[in-house]
Amino acid sequence: MIYLDNAATTRPYPEALATYTEVASKIWGNPSSLHQLGSQASRILQASRKQIADLIGVLPQEIFFTSGGTEGDNWVIKGVAFEKEQFGKHIIVSDIEHPAVKESALWLKTQGYEVDFAPVDQQGFVDVEKLATLLRPDTILVSVMAVNNEIGSIQPIQTISDLLKDKPTISFHVDAVQALAKIPTATYLTDRVDFATFSSHKFHGLRGVGFAYIKNGKKITPLLTGGGQETDKRSTTENLAGIAATAKALRLAMERQEEFTHKTSQMKQVLLQGLSAYEDIRIFSGQDQFAPHILTFGLKGVRGEVLVHAFEEYGIYVSTTSACSSKAGKPAGTLLSMGIQSQLATTAVRMSLDLENDMSQIEQVLTTFKIIYEQTKKVR
Amino acid sequence: MIYLDNAATTRPYPEALATYTEVASKIWGNPSSLHQLGSQASRILQASRKQIADLIGVLPQEIFFTSGGTEGDNWVIKGVAFEKEQFGKHIIVSDIEHPAVKESALWLKTQGYEVDFAPVDQQGFVDVEKLATLLRPDTILVSVMAVNNEIGSIQPIQTISDLLKDKPTISFHVDAVQALAKIPTATYLTDRVDFATFSSHKFHGLRGVGFAYIKNGKKITPLLTGGGQETDKRSTTENLAGIAATAKALRLAMERQEEFTHKTSQMKQVLLQGLSAYEDIRIFSGQDQFAPHILTFGLKGVRGEVLVHAFEEYGIYVSTTSACSSKAGKPAGTLLSMGIQSQLATTAVRMSLDLENDMSQIEQVLTTFKIIYEQTKKVR
Repeated sequence: MIYLDNAATTRPYPEALATYTEVASKIWGNPSSLHQLGSQASRILQASRKQIADLIGVLPQEIFFTSGGTEGDNWVIKGVAFEKEQFGKHIIVSDIEHPAVKESALWLKTQGYEVDFAPVDQQGFVDVEKLATLLRPDTILVSVMAVNNEIGSIQPIQTISDLLKDKPTISFHVDAVQALAKIPTATYLTDRVDFATFSSHKFHGLRGVGFAYIKNGKKITPLLTGGGQETDKRSTTENLAGIAATAKALRLAMERQEEFTHKTSQMKQVLLQGLSAYEDIRIFSGQDQFAPHILTFGLKGVRGEVLVHAFEEYGIYVSTTSACSSKAGKPAGTLLSMGIQSQLATTAVRMSLDLENDMSQIEQVLTTFKIIYEQTKKVR
Repeated sequence: MIYLDNAATTRPYPEALATYTEVASKIWGNPSSLHQLGSQASRILQASRKQIADLIGVLPQEIFFTSGGTEGDNWVIKGVAFEKEQFGKHIIVSDIEHPAVKESALWLKTQGYEVDFAPVDQQGFVDVEKLATLLRPDTILVSVMAVNNEIGSIQPIQTISDLLKDKPTISFHVDAVQALAKIPTATYLTDRVDFATFSSHKFHGLRGVGFAYIKNGKKITPLLTGGGQETDKRSTTENLAGIAATAKALRLAMERQEEFTHKTSQMKQVLLQGLSAYEDIRIFSGQDQFAPHILTFGLKGVRGEVLVHAFEEYGIYVSTTSACSSKAGKPAGTLLSMGIQSQLATTAVRMSLDLENDMSQIEQVLTTFKIIYEQTKKVR
């Protein structure tokens, strides 16, 4: 098996899974319980929080556990909107956000909020000048992702941070789900960022766990109200085993980040060179200002899902851009936002690499592509 | 260790944990992915959904996975309110609901909804006649829990179902977190119930997983919007390992439910008899119409947390009613709703039993209580 769908989900690190099992079987008390089982659980919870905070360079009290990226995004978009309602009801999200952000913003429209979608250029980067023209006195929130999930473009978070520097009343959210442990944290977790959201299973942690960074002092309406956990910001009995496993996975992933960048960049370059040699190929992901591990391309006249299944025959797993939209058969929204025609957009195939891949696999992918390219010639 | 805090959380079944590990390490594809790893994951997801549906006697398409009881409660209360806004903005929740329900209802008040709290009688049962007087033409939702988490009273869900029989425009939600696999499903999952919410870790499943029953055709606004999972009702990459483990745990717990009822009832009866023998003891949980495994009592003049720590010295883990409120040091809300004076309410201690407990432990608890009773005599 050659798994090149790491942006959809990653294989859990055995070490993270071992931590999960250890905690779930031995430290299964409710952290809210007053007795020793509770305080033992509470200590693990705080240690995990501190470890994660240290790894991304923030304070432990700025980390709030969630059930994943989608909850984090929904929470920030809806929670900030509700919290700041009296100051304005205008929000801006980029046109290439993950559906968790985009659909949350669209839902807010049904609640009387106004939403503008900041456009991107032809390469898939938010146009900061155009974003600037959308800012209004009643703008309460700007949300732009760090790394686009469909083509891997790294968004200009620092430039947007500079733009928002003298506008302290606007909250700035960064969906960092595809960025953490893939590109340097400092590039997207700038001083100006107020909220950032993360998902464990994207960095070899476990499903159903994520966390949000909420800058000290920033207010947000809870999405989950109840027992008062997470300093009353996000109630529910803490998924302690999942949280401890997330801390473990993040430590390992960040220790390996330099190697990850080096190795995936090399593999991506070989893939790019190999694929570019074919006519009828359109490359959507570049190298400069793109995440090192994401390569999206299309074979003109061949729908992405046809390529996905063709690769699958050879035990190679790739994706038609985002996993979420693939079953719906929708073309990649990011490509449409870039001004790419719908027909070409439906050809998109995403390869997302990981440290667990190696160059021999990449060679095999290219060899296989050659076969598929010939096979599809008659239908193109 | 004698663990009598099973209403806070239960020890995961080793079999459920084994399922988790098996799925997380072997079937870690994203169910939304088009390739084989995705479809393999998708099949496990559907099998788990069917198993759970079969076990509680509903249809697979009526089961929606969540991150736990709190999310389920928040989703139903807020989601139904938003969904039915144009039909009315009045909701009724019982006065003894879990904070996940109660705080959600209180939050809706900030959004222009009107909320009535249905009172309970002195024994802790919702007064259905009084609930009936609260119904209005613009009432859109009634929410009453199946088993109260603080004293174990089984609420009159069938009677409320009868009351709402000819009022089809009112949605009826039952928080069944403390009921599933503890009391017969039919007693709270009546034909009239539209929504019910469940949590995996209360029946020896895993933390961070739960599910909601949503009757076919009933509409609800999603709390988590995004990638369109769970037929677009609850987006996020599915926590497949946790879901499969939940199905496994539920099967085991329900297979053992008869034995659970038999054994915990016996243990509860011995505890009740033993404790009732002391003067200065006030019992808050009866046997008739109470869950077999929950026993809440107070020792007059002694704060619940003092008793919790006294038992802890002997390796016995009990709770001051709900885990959620215990750290906040709040008296049990259910007791206050029952008209019990605040000072007496602060004495409450909850023992929640499980099949993993046995009669020798109960004898040890009673022996220990005798010592604690004598020790605290001077301070009472």
